[in-house]
Amino acid sequence: MKYATLGEIMLRLSTPGAQRFVQAKSFDVCYGGGEANVAVSLCNYGEEAALITKIPDNDIGQACVNSLREFGVDTSKILRGGKRLGIYFLETGYSMRPSQVVYDRADSAIAQAKPEEFDFKKLLADVQWLHISGITPALSENSAKITLEALKAAKELGITTSFDLNFRAKLWTKEQAQAAMIPMMKFVDYVIGNEEDAQNCLGFQMDGDVTSGKLDVAKYEIMLAELCKKYGFKGAATSLRESHSATWNGWSTALSINGKFYHSKHYDINPIVDRVGGGDSFSAGLIYGLTHFDDPQQAVEFSAAASALKQTIPGDTNHVTVKEVLKLASGDASGRVQR
Amino acid sequence: MKYATLGEIMLRLSTPGAQRFVQAKSFDVCYGGGEANVAVSLCNYGEEAALITKIPDNDIGQACVNSLREFGVDTSKILRGGKRLGIYFLETGYSMRPSQVVYDRADSAIAQAKPEEFDFKKLLADVQWLHISGITPALSENSAKITLEALKAAKELGITTSFDLNFRAKLWTKEQAQAAMIPMMKFVDYVIGNEEDAQNCLGFQMDGDVTSGKLDVAKYEIMLAELCKKYGFKGAATSLRESHSATWNGWSTALSINGKFYHSKHYDINPIVDRVGGGDSFSAGLIYGLTHFDDPQQAVEFSAAASALKQTIPGDTNHVTVKEVLKLASGDASGRVQR
Amino acid sequence: MKYATLGEIMLRLSTPGAQRFVQAKSFDVCYGGGEANVAVSLCNYGEEAALITKIPDNDIGQACVNSLREFGVDTSKILRGGKRLGIYFLETGYSMRPSQVVYDRADSAIAQAKPEEFDFKKLLADVQWLHISGITPALSENSAKITLEALKAAKELGITTSFDLNFRAKLWTKEQAQAAMIPMMKFVDYVIGNEEDAQNCLGFQMDGDVTSGKLDVAKYEIMLAELCKKYGFKGAATSLRESHSATWNGWSTALSINGKFYHSKHYDINPIVDRVGGGDSFSAGLIYGLTHFDDPQQAVEFSAAASALKQTIPGDTNHVTVKEVLKLASGDASGRVQR
Amino acid sequence: MKYATLGEIMLRLSTPGAQRFVQAKSFDVCYGGGEANVAVSLCNYGEEAALITKIPDNDIGQACVNSLREFGVDTSKILRGGKRLGIYFLETGYSMRPSQVVYDRADSAIAQAKPEEFDFKKLLADVQWLHISGITPALSENSAKITLEALKAAKELGITTSFDLNFRAKLWTKEQAQAAMIPMMKFVDYVIGNEEDAQNCLGFQMDGDVTSGKLDVAKYEIMLAELCKKYGFKGAATSLRESHSATWNGWSTALSINGKFYHSKHYDINPIVDRVGGGDSFSAGLIYGLTHFDDPQQAVEFSAAASALKQTIPGDTNHVTVKEVLKLASGDASGRVQR
Amino acid sequence: MKYATLGEIMLRLSTPGAQRFVQAKSFDVCYGGGEANVAVSLCNYGEEAALITKIPDNDIGQACVNSLREFGVDTSKILRGGKRLGIYFLETGYSMRPSQVVYDRADSAIAQAKPEEFDFKKLLADVQWLHISGITPALSENSAKITLEALKAAKELGITTSFDLNFRAKLWTKEQAQAAMIPMMKFVDYVIGNEEDAQNCLGFQMDGDVTSGKLDVAKYEIMLAELCKKYGFKGAATSLRESHSATWNGWSTALSINGKFYHSKHYDINPIVDRVGGGDSFSAGLIYGLTHFDDPQQAVEFSAAASALKQTIPGDTNHVTVKEVLKLASGDASGRVQR
Amino acid sequence: MKYATLGEIMLRLSTPGAQRFVQAKSFDVCYGGGEANVAVSLCNYGEEAALITKIPDNDIGQACVNSLREFGVDTSKILRGGKRLGIYFLETGYSMRPSQVVYDRADSAIAQAKPEEFDFKKLLADVQWLHISGITPALSENSAKITLEALKAAKELGITTSFDLNFRAKLWTKEQAQAAMIPMMKFVDYVIGNEEDAQNCLGFQMDGDVTSGKLDVAKYEIMLAELCKKYGFKGAATSLRESHSATWNGWSTALSINGKFYHSKHYDINPIVDRVGGGDSFSAGLIYGLTHFDDPQQAVEFSAAASALKQTIPGDTNHVTVKEVLKLASGDASGRVQR
Repeated sequence: MKYATLGEIMLRLSTPGAQRFVQAKSFDVCYGGGEANVAVSLCNYGEEAALITKIPDNDIGQACVNSLREFGVDTSKILRGGKRLGIYFLETGYSMRPSQVVYDRADSAIAQAKPEEFDFKKLLADVQWLHISGITPALSENSAKITLEALKAAKELGITTSFDLNFRAKLWTKEQAQAAMIPMMKFVDYVIGNEEDAQNCLGFQMDGDVTSGKLDVAKYEIMLAELCKKYGFKGAATSLRESHSATWNGWSTALSINGKFYHSKHYDINPIVDRVGGGDSFSAGLIYGLTHFDDPQQAVEFSAAASALKQTIPGDTNHVTVKEVLKLASGDASGRVQR
Repeated sequence: MKYATLGEIMLRLSTPGAQRFVQAKSFDVCYGGGEANVAVSLCNYGEEAALITKIPDNDIGQACVNSLREFGVDTSKILRGGKRLGIYFLETGYSMRPSQVVYDRADSAIAQAKPEEFDFKKLLADVQWLHISGITPALSENSAKITLEALKAAKELGITTSFDLNFRAKLWTKEQAQAAMIPMMKFVDYVIGNEEDAQNCLGFQMDGDVTSGKLDVAKYEIMLAELCKKYGFKGAATSLRESHSATWNGWSTALSINGKFYHSKHYDINPIVDRVGGGDSFSAGLIYGLTHFDDPQQAVEFSAAASALKQTIPGDTNHVTVKEVLKLASGDASGRVQR
Repeated sequence: MKYATLGEIMLRLSTPGAQRFVQAKSFDVCYGGGEANVAVSLCNYGEEAALITKIPDNDIGQACVNSLREFGVDTSKILRGGKRLGIYFLETGYSMRPSQVVYDRADSAIAQAKPEEFDFKKLLADVQWLHISGITPALSENSAKITLEALKAAKELGITTSFDLNFRAKLWTKEQAQAAMIPMMKFVDYVIGNEEDAQNCLGFQMDGDVTSGKLDVAKYEIMLAELCKKYGFKGAATSLRESHSATWNGWSTALSINGKFYHSKHYDINPIVDRVGGGDSFSAGLIYGLTHFDDPQQAVEFSAAASALKQTIPGDTNHVTVKEVLKLASGDASGRVQR
Repeated sequence: MKYATLGEIMLRLSTPGAQRFVQAKSFDVCYGGGEANVAVSLCNYGEEAALITKIPDNDIGQACVNSLREFGVDTSKILRGGKRLGIYFLETGYSMRPSQVVYDRADSAIAQAKPEEFDFKKLLADVQWLHISGITPALSENSAKITLEALKAAKELGITTSFDLNFRAKLWTKEQAQAAMIPMMKFVDYVIGNEEDAQNCLGFQMDGDVTSGKLDVAKYEIMLAELCKKYGFKGAATSLRESHSATWNGWSTALSINGKFYHSKHYDINPIVDRVGGGDSFSAGLIYGLTHFDDPQQAVEFSAAASALKQTIPGDTNHVTVKEVLKLASGDASGRVQR
Repeated sequence: MKYATLGEIMLRLSTPGAQRFVQAKSFDVCYGGGEANVAVSLCNYGEEAALITKIPDNDIGQACVNSLREFGVDTSKILRGGKRLGIYFLETGYSMRPSQVVYDRADSAIAQAKPEEFDFKKLLADVQWLHISGITPALSENSAKITLEALKAAKELGITTSFDLNFRAKLWTKEQAQAAMIPMMKFVDYVIGNEEDAQNCLGFQMDGDVTSGKLDVAKYEIMLAELCKKYGFKGAATSLRESHSATWNGWSTALSINGKFYHSKHYDINPIVDRVGGGDSFSAGLIYGLTHFDDPQQAVEFSAAASALKQTIPGDTNHVTVKEVLKLASGDASGRVQR
Repeated sequence: MKYATLGEIMLRLSTPGAQRFVQAKSFDVCYGGGEANVAVSLCNYGEEAALITKIPDNDIGQACVNSLREFGVDTSKILRGGKRLGIYFLETGYSMRPSQVVYDRADSAIAQAKPEEFDFKKLLADVQWLHISGITPALSENSAKITLEALKAAKELGITTSFDLNFRAKLWTKEQAQAAMIPMMKFVDYVIGNEEDAQNCLGFQMDGDVTSGKLDVAKYEIMLAELCKKYGFKGAATSLRESHSATWNGWSTALSINGKFYHSKHYDINPIVDRVGGGDSFSAGLIYGLTHFDDPQQAVEFSAAASALKQTIPGDTNHVTVKEVLKLASGDASGRVQR
């Protein structure tokens, strides 16, 4: 089975240690983006995965491509060209000080790419699963068109699709998001998103204060079931994050499929090393789980353990093996030295 | 409104990561000291603040001056000369291993400065608030004289004064401290200090075991009220720290003003990134609060949130904006990524 | 009193920060091994201690020797020669992600050393205590012979001996371990080991799930008493670790001596900075305690505080002074800044 | 005397050590740009200097402002706002491998600023010298207008002006440059530029192969004299660089003033630490020289020594004192330890 | 055209900066080996290249594989298994202090691999050029057999072969080398080696003191011609290095082909950043040149410029593009900033 | 043979890379001082050497002691106590930018030590050679007394003495130096010093401009011979440094002994990595040479090669082996990789 993802990959510049932006005399460099992170995760599980995007034909772009190749991502479907690689600056939070992100992603190569540059029939010819997040259509009007065309092509080719709603208020309004994304849902097999995403991207409503640190699982069960019902998804999934502080979160994941609700065991992630990419690693874990386990509970447990582990690893991407995820999913969270 | 602070700024040399002194092959460099830290904090809130001190006229001294200018501190009132910049070595603690400080500050330029070098009428001419800590008079007999003269001049000029008692057993005895500091109190509007400071600097007594991790707030209420009564302070304030370990502290602040007691909400700081400068950031937050909010509770909440945030930031100084402090003071300690 | 330890010291290559192996572009370098770590600890307590081992006569070997001399270890009993220094790669875990160790220690100089290279009568002539761990006989058949000869020589010379069972499944099977180690026990005065070590190395059985995070102290009391009875040890000791996560452990130590059981106070180590060498620092603390305190409870408290502190320090070795250990053992775990 | 400069300041991201872009896992951070570099240099000489520019009102922008304040630059004339701070990536060359620059500066705050945002009468009210480089008008059509308005206002206010031609082929064509810059020249007192700049920006021609490593000084004498004659400049200056390799350059500077030609002594800079900002430090040295020395030869020697020293210092900006420049200008290039 | 290379890739651990081994507290990490370096170079030229080797199936091995994938090397022909990855420690020299290499490569996975593990008919099926160096047969008797089988298979498949003699005195004697390598030569199309290699590996003699810093090109012309004649090589090539110091070398390359001698222009590499891999980058440049240029002089110039550039780049591998090599080969060694 | 040296060891804080003081956000840490450097060098040659000094009894002092033990220096003769360890700040120069040293060494433990604290009869009982530099008596009046007493005791014990004049203008005037040092000369066997030292410390005159980069060897021959004659030294030696720039020096050494003059071969050190400690490594090389070679030419060559190598190594101390020095002294300065 081969997977493809479509979206932006950015240069990430993060302050070392616990430094604030105004203290930094160097930035740590990595490359990441929602769909790229999913592709890297899948490759780390031993799968074949390709990223479809556009990256400028300069040295910074080449370094970005290399970072994907390093982990085995198929980069042959990447267009080279455009003006710049999008950038985001990250300052990692501690205790009650939140992480800060400063975006400098406007006019990136992929945001300015045109629909006619992508021949999805060809790009998806050797692929069985396509994954996109809601960030891709939010980049530009062209990006929204490209996203829709990719999803349509996938359905024509009989490819399974998953879509992580991932609303980003800095990129568009919820009105814009809904106008663009609701029409896409009919081409989506599996949707991923929490209550805020569902509300902003699809107009869904759900009670519950996510900043309180306490979550009502039952409400998520209802939300996911209703999403499936309304849009005809094969499945709908969400992570359940309790944000106690920047360095301590509760974490679990849930899936509604075939009318049943599956909720993973609960993890207390403390300390969090890097929570960026946590959601993407959940998507990747879920996709892997759905394509490798018959029991949905196993898929959910895999997705939860995978994404909990991600948050103990620096960088956007999740560097864990299937064996490591299964070990944690099987209950060993003791952290004893492996030697 | 313009603020001035008077005191020593030192070169801080700290071991990287969790290294002990005997392991260090490099030291991280920053510059800090009680009053300098207050000035930097105020500048980060968008205020004008100057540091009055003496710094040697060599490259290390220049780097120190630059570090103040970087954050907007007015360095035009700094004398240049003397033999050396004071130094302190810092080893940051973890869990039950405490942080260690090795002082090498004897004979610093400011400790050896003479009273006649400072023309406070002129230095304070454009200032409305003067802040000093008890470290300044402890540096030398001359420093004690300079401190007293500064306070007197402030009063003559109608400047509001605040004084952070800050007893340092390595610099003088409590007998010496009391002899020097009690006479200064009549020139002080706002005093800051915990039970140990009050006892050592002013001869005050208060029960309660600060190493137990449990604090009796009522005793602080009494202490602060009595301090105001005895010395005629407009206000008296303290932080309430519960030291669970080197990396986990409980934290709140309290103020007694106009016969009323105000206690901030409680913060659990875990992990602490750098607790040095926590008290100074409390002083700066309180000064800002007293000069910007009508409600003393708001001032206290601002001071508590500001100083809690400081302890999540490496270095002596507090790099947070008013907006960030208000956000935490308003109750959002979830640490969710700001993007 | 002078101590000697016999065993392998390796080059340790660890990933910086929280990086995984596949992310590392540099490795932090230190040198460590069970018995070397004990020798360094003892020297840090102001004692004289020597390491007996074999180290290759090249620059990497010299750097290793220097690292021992740096902390005062007597390196005059070290043989120089052989093909290579053993290496281990370390990736430090966080939260539920465990630390990983990759060994590359086969064919090291000490593993390939021959019994006739060591004249223990001479090597131990100025020594009153000999400490070895179960790793040493596990290295090779020759190493097992060398271990036995060292223990025999020690007994002939009237030297006290301690033995840390320390089973390593990657080096041998439990059958091999028992065949080699049981005959050694008659030359051992003090044995150290937890329930797994006792089971694997000596064939002992004990119930209790060490991954559950809850420990039944009573079972340890029985185990240690029975060990003493069966093998005629003067004392038997163990650490009691509750592994909540890679960065949070409960910790205490226990000793059975003269028919009585002594259990230290309990420490919550959170965050753990580096748990490697925790057991070795316990051995060193216990050896120091047994030779410096009349009260076994004091010895146990010393060993527990020492080894809890170790886990807050990066590297294999424990850089704490007697004064620091006593301060923690006396109850001050508040982590307040020492200044 | 107070100086102002007008232009863009960018975030500079450079690879550490001798790494190529594709090897970098971190970037060193500093902030620089032609006119900002001149302002920092002048402040390091103890002068007052302000930068006029526009910087975004986010944390990266604040870090940029702080970097200017650190060295004493007056930042009160800086507008805050706009979308982004321009970025340039730098890979430092060695031997025959040239340094590489990747620009990502489009749509920066200053490039998108509008002429009406700048009230030059007010901005230049306290200033006696204005310096601009040819990069500023090249940023955008608005920037060209802003440049022209600044120069006009300066002349109306009786302010001396200097202009560093600084042609950048990546920003505009020589036709565009000439159309914009030639009309500006009548407001310029002192022009700075080498033969390529004169040709591209003003349509001047001069023979000589600058890549050959050999320069014909006589031709520069003619060029500078003709520039003065044609445009009525008070003076015209240039650096004379012989590029032997990325790490070894010959260096001198020359000035034509009052009909006379002054050529500095020659420096062999080997190794070059960082040649970026070499030209700007020459401008700053020349401006300082012209305003502090009666003898033009002294001014030229100062400019040459200052800019030679810059190339031994990492970063865009020149951190040398007047005393250090004079020492080198006076002939001591022995590099003996100052102690 | 697709290339394959066969040989060992090692973990390289180098001291940072100019540190000696006994000073290092960290090692920089990269992965390299003669044949791997050739494969990376070719991929950086936009070609397809695969490495055939055996790498252990652990995290260190995976990091090694990733380092190859990062630069586009086809890693699908790599066997996974065996005990360990070979290691070499590198201390970079300066001035008259030479670089030091400490090998720890015995018993590596590839050295212990058996001939029957490699099915060269299959491994080379999609390949048109095979490159091996003399290090591969030196690793072990099995490695020598594997090398011979690879060469035979290549000839049977009509694949062009190149062989870099590369004598390593630490791996075998010249007698052993000659016994193994002379029989291989009949399967070799292009041989690469200097006078020492020719002497040690093939029993050739040539006068000239390579430590003198002066080389007699005419002797190389004769040597290469005679090598071609004696072994029937299509071509024979060598680099001509003048070792003035660890950081300053003269450098050129030469090729004898079709009875004619081609000598590249001469480069003065000063400073050398990293000379390790210089020879491999010459091989890669020559292979690229021979397969892309009709004129042998062009091929030689390409190989010389490529390998000169390599020595300005840290690490084993050469990260330059065809465009960059051609620019230097065309004569621009001025090192002027590319912007 | 066992050596002792007497003098101050300081904490050295140097800026990383080519940074200036005002740019540094961290300092590299090492420990050094003239006599300590000599002791470390001798230990690196496999000799026994002790440092006699006084070091404060705090963590920074302990780190300093450890740095000596690391390289095998006997630290048992070191007194512990006093207020502080002297510090010096170092900024390494490049090209025409000189290295800068900022001293902060006043009131160090050794400078404040009293003569009665040192029982030289006992301290020197196991020693055959005593080495001191002119820095030691310059530290304080007490230090001068201690120096004299040490020299006297050495002579009474029949110990050979060497004295490196080493004039430091920041510590005393030449009048003070001569008053203190001339009376010491009668206890000195071997004197080391260049023309400036001889002039400042002993009132000697010699022509020649040391900043010119050209040296007149004949004048040195005369100077050394006259020094021997006037003071009855067994030998007098000097280094001959031609300072072309901060990173390029010519270097040789010379010795006058038994009426004959020996001059080493000449080295071109380019690039210099760290010239601090160059003179000390010359002293150590000379002492080693005089005690191990019969031929004075060999001793001189050893001293020259040793001290040339030092300048290619970061830090104060010389980490080279006898084998490495002999290899360079024998003429191989080609810097070819040792593998």
